[in-house]
Amino acid sequence: MEQVVKYIKDNRERYIEELKDYIRIPSISTLKSNIPDIKKCSKFVADNLKNAGMKKVKIIPTAGHPLVYAEWMGAPGKPTVLVYGHYDVQPVDPVELWKNPPFEPVIKSGKIWARGADDNKGQNFIHIKSVEAYLKTTGKLPLNVKFLIEGEEEIGSENLELFLKKNKKLLKCDSVLISDTSMYAPGIPTINYGLRGLCYMEIEVTGPDRDLHSGSFGGGIANPINELAKIISKLQNSDGKITIPGFYKDVIKLSPIERANYKKLKYSDKALMKEFNVKELQGEKGYTTLERMSGRPTLDCNGIVGGFIEEGAKTVLPSKASAKISMRLVPDQDPKTISKLFTKYVKSLAPKSIKVEIKDLHGGFPIVMSLDDKAITAASKAVSKAFGKKTVFTREGGSIPIVVDFAKQLNAPVVLMGFGLETDNIHSPNEHFNLKNFELGMLSSVYFFEEFSK
Amino acid sequence: MEQVVKYIKDNRERYIEELKDYIRIPSISTLKSNIPDIKKCSKFVADNLKNAGMKKVKIIPTAGHPLVYAEWMGAPGKPTVLVYGHYDVQPVDPVELWKNPPFEPVIKSGKIWARGADDNKGQNFIHIKSVEAYLKTTGKLPLNVKFLIEGEEEIGSENLELFLKKNKKLLKCDSVLISDTSMYAPGIPTINYGLRGLCYMEIEVTGPDRDLHSGSFGGGIANPINELAKIISKLQNSDGKITIPGFYKDVIKLSPIERANYKKLKYSDKALMKEFNVKELQGEKGYTTLERMSGRPTLDCNGIVGGFIEEGAKTVLPSKASAKISMRLVPDQDPKTISKLFTKYVKSLAPKSIKVEIKDLHGGFPIVMSLDDKAITAASKAVSKAFGKKTVFTREGGSIPIVVDFAKQLNAPVVLMGFGLETDNIHSPNEHFNLKNFELGMLSSVYFFEEFSK
Repeated sequence: MEQVVKYIKDNRERYIEELKDYIRIPSISTLKSNIPDIKKCSKFVADNLKNAGMKKVKIIPTAGHPLVYAEWMGAPGKPTVLVYGHYDVQPVDPVELWKNPPFEPVIKSGKIWARGADDNKGQNFIHIKSVEAYLKTTGKLPLNVKFLIEGEEEIGSENLELFLKKNKKLLKCDSVLISDTSMYAPGIPTINYGLRGLCYMEIEVTGPDRDLHSGSFGGGIANPINELAKIISKLQNSDGKITIPGFYKDVIKLSPIERANYKKLKYSDKALMKEFNVKELQGEKGYTTLERMSGRPTLDCNGIVGGFIEEGAKTVLPSKASAKISMRLVPDQDPKTISKLFTKYVKSLAPKSIKVEIKDLHGGFPIVMSLDDKAITAASKAVSKAFGKKTVFTREGGSIPIVVDFAKQLNAPVVLMGFGLETDNIHSPNEHFNLKNFELGMLSSVYFFEEFSK
Repeated sequence: MEQVVKYIKDNRERYIEELKDYIRIPSISTLKSNIPDIKKCSKFVADNLKNAGMKKVKIIPTAGHPLVYAEWMGAPGKPTVLVYGHYDVQPVDPVELWKNPPFEPVIKSGKIWARGADDNKGQNFIHIKSVEAYLKTTGKLPLNVKFLIEGEEEIGSENLELFLKKNKKLLKCDSVLISDTSMYAPGIPTINYGLRGLCYMEIEVTGPDRDLHSGSFGGGIANPINELAKIISKLQNSDGKITIPGFYKDVIKLSPIERANYKKLKYSDKALMKEFNVKELQGEKGYTTLERMSGRPTLDCNGIVGGFIEEGAKTVLPSKASAKISMRLVPDQDPKTISKLFTKYVKSLAPKSIKVEIKDLHGGFPIVMSLDDKAITAASKAVSKAFGKKTVFTREGGSIPIVVDFAKQLNAPVVLMGFGLETDNIHSPNEHFNLKNFELGMLSSVYFFEEFSK
């Protein structure tokens, strides 16, 4: 064990250089133009797993972007851990707000700055490198390890979902280990025991069949932007409650114990306001900020566009306007049910003067895990040892839809051992990852393998 | 007179070829990139006026785009007509909806198809060419004529406004002749006696100071798109009334005589719905469609943008969202007053969780003219003679803010002798202009000069 830890420390600089190479590949999964980069990135991951000493490394084609699989099964009788991660990243716009080009990583203030630095390249690289440290020093792992790194997490993991269903035997394990979440606060070892689900919709409103002069036709023909705004405004009431009929029907209320746990975390609203330069927070009445951001469902417009959006003025009554709207879900909301309720309600809000087309772009189930599980207990001990502090248990506001599938399909507990920070700007310009967390993450990974092998 | 009419008929094809050359210059006034084209276009107009036989032709620089001036003052004792037009055009987006490239004019079905074909190159060219016909045949005009063609109509005519104030002597006239409006219907000679004004605003809403992950922060931090949508939705009530306090205070109500006149025009709601493929019309309760589109004030979003607007899904809680919102005004609404009322109201709607910045992009006064005026009577006779039908009098929904300035500064009646059609797609893809109207427009111009000279 000492050897392994020493190897990680001795090879820190090389590991960082390799992580930079990983990040330099612009593997944006939602853009068709970046398909060659996605391929290149899958090969990079496979090569790295091979070099680490993993066996049966395979790039598995899917109907979309490829999966990378690897295993080391040299510890018969010991538990098996399946490490999941994703090598695809979010788009980079608005690119003009980045301080360095998003795919040219820069080290500054002890952090690595680039798209994917945290989400998820930095975080999954931790486990590839902890395995390398074991295999290069002791020649073996204390338990069996499988890797499954996908390229479609940011676009809904559809093909991984299919793969999971068809490959339960291949992926059989005693625990799924995922580092794709945030720590509660810098330096505080954290295990996430819940994730929100997602229902991501797109509304397109059509008024007249072509753009019109707003002077000639304004007042006669319905304006799709005004109508879209009215629809959006009706999705929430003044208490911040979502008004879609039936939306809250399957929501499991936060228990008094959970609310007490939330309280213990001593979340600072003031710090949040200061961090993002806002004068007031906002959300569902009756809940604390942390409860609203992780334990309650929400609705956000992620994008809107219509009419003339360049500099200056154009007096157009546009033909179309559209908005992307996503809802974060909590147990036991079902994204398919929510999608149907959303569609029905939005259609009911639309006047006859416009046409409304609604698309379901993707979705994922929410999940909450048991805190008594053996894997979760081992993980809690491991991160506590690496960071030298007591572990806290939190729920995360974001979604990793595939976590639910892992839990259901493989019938194994999922350990969410995140090393990101909420201020890492994932999905935003100037994403970054703390190199201290990268290093302590590798130690946590090693300690977890050790602890869980007992 | 016969000679003049014969010249117009004989030179029809050449006139059309020259109009095509005029249109080929992409003189979009709102785009900085097109400044060289604006210059080129002003020179084209000046050269054409010179070739027509006009005197003292000048390209007059302004703080923005240049004006073109010309005069022919060889009829002492006779009235003076000032012809106004604009050589600048609207942007062309969405360019993918054009059937031919917007600045490569095509003749098809008796129409010329291109940006500016109607608004306003085709329409101002009519008068340049009627003057040419006079001067090339009889060597003189029956009255004095001045031309003032500007390059900033589509962006607010700010510099023309200044020029008018400072050059009342140069521009002194007995009537201002403008062809920049639409005929009531194909083949129906029309004189417009009213125009709506304009107040064009931009709202920018800022939430957090950077884009955030909507999973991590949704429910805690206000979303600028959702908040902007709420603001927009509150600008009109369910009766289609604008809710800005004081908005209707200065509106002169439509008189029973005017409402009777509107009724006589037998406007077809069904035809409008069919033309633009909508199932229902929409607007202020208590008024007919034609009243709403020309005699009543309106509010339209001309553009909106925020967050992720490309293909696919991105779970972002954006930092900013903005909308361009314009209001059409009727006498006696004052655009500056409306701008202030709008700003005050929008600010009052914004919650503390967001910042709102409001800009006044441009504005113009509404106007209604007297039907008894000598120039208007002469114009009515002229178009009736050219088109062989009884003239109708209408109010136009659009704005030519400068018309009010002409009327006020020069103390002269403004004749709005439009040859466009409402279906000409001005400001939209596939703008076009009927060549029959181009030809009958030239005859109307000739007859007007004749009639008004009496």
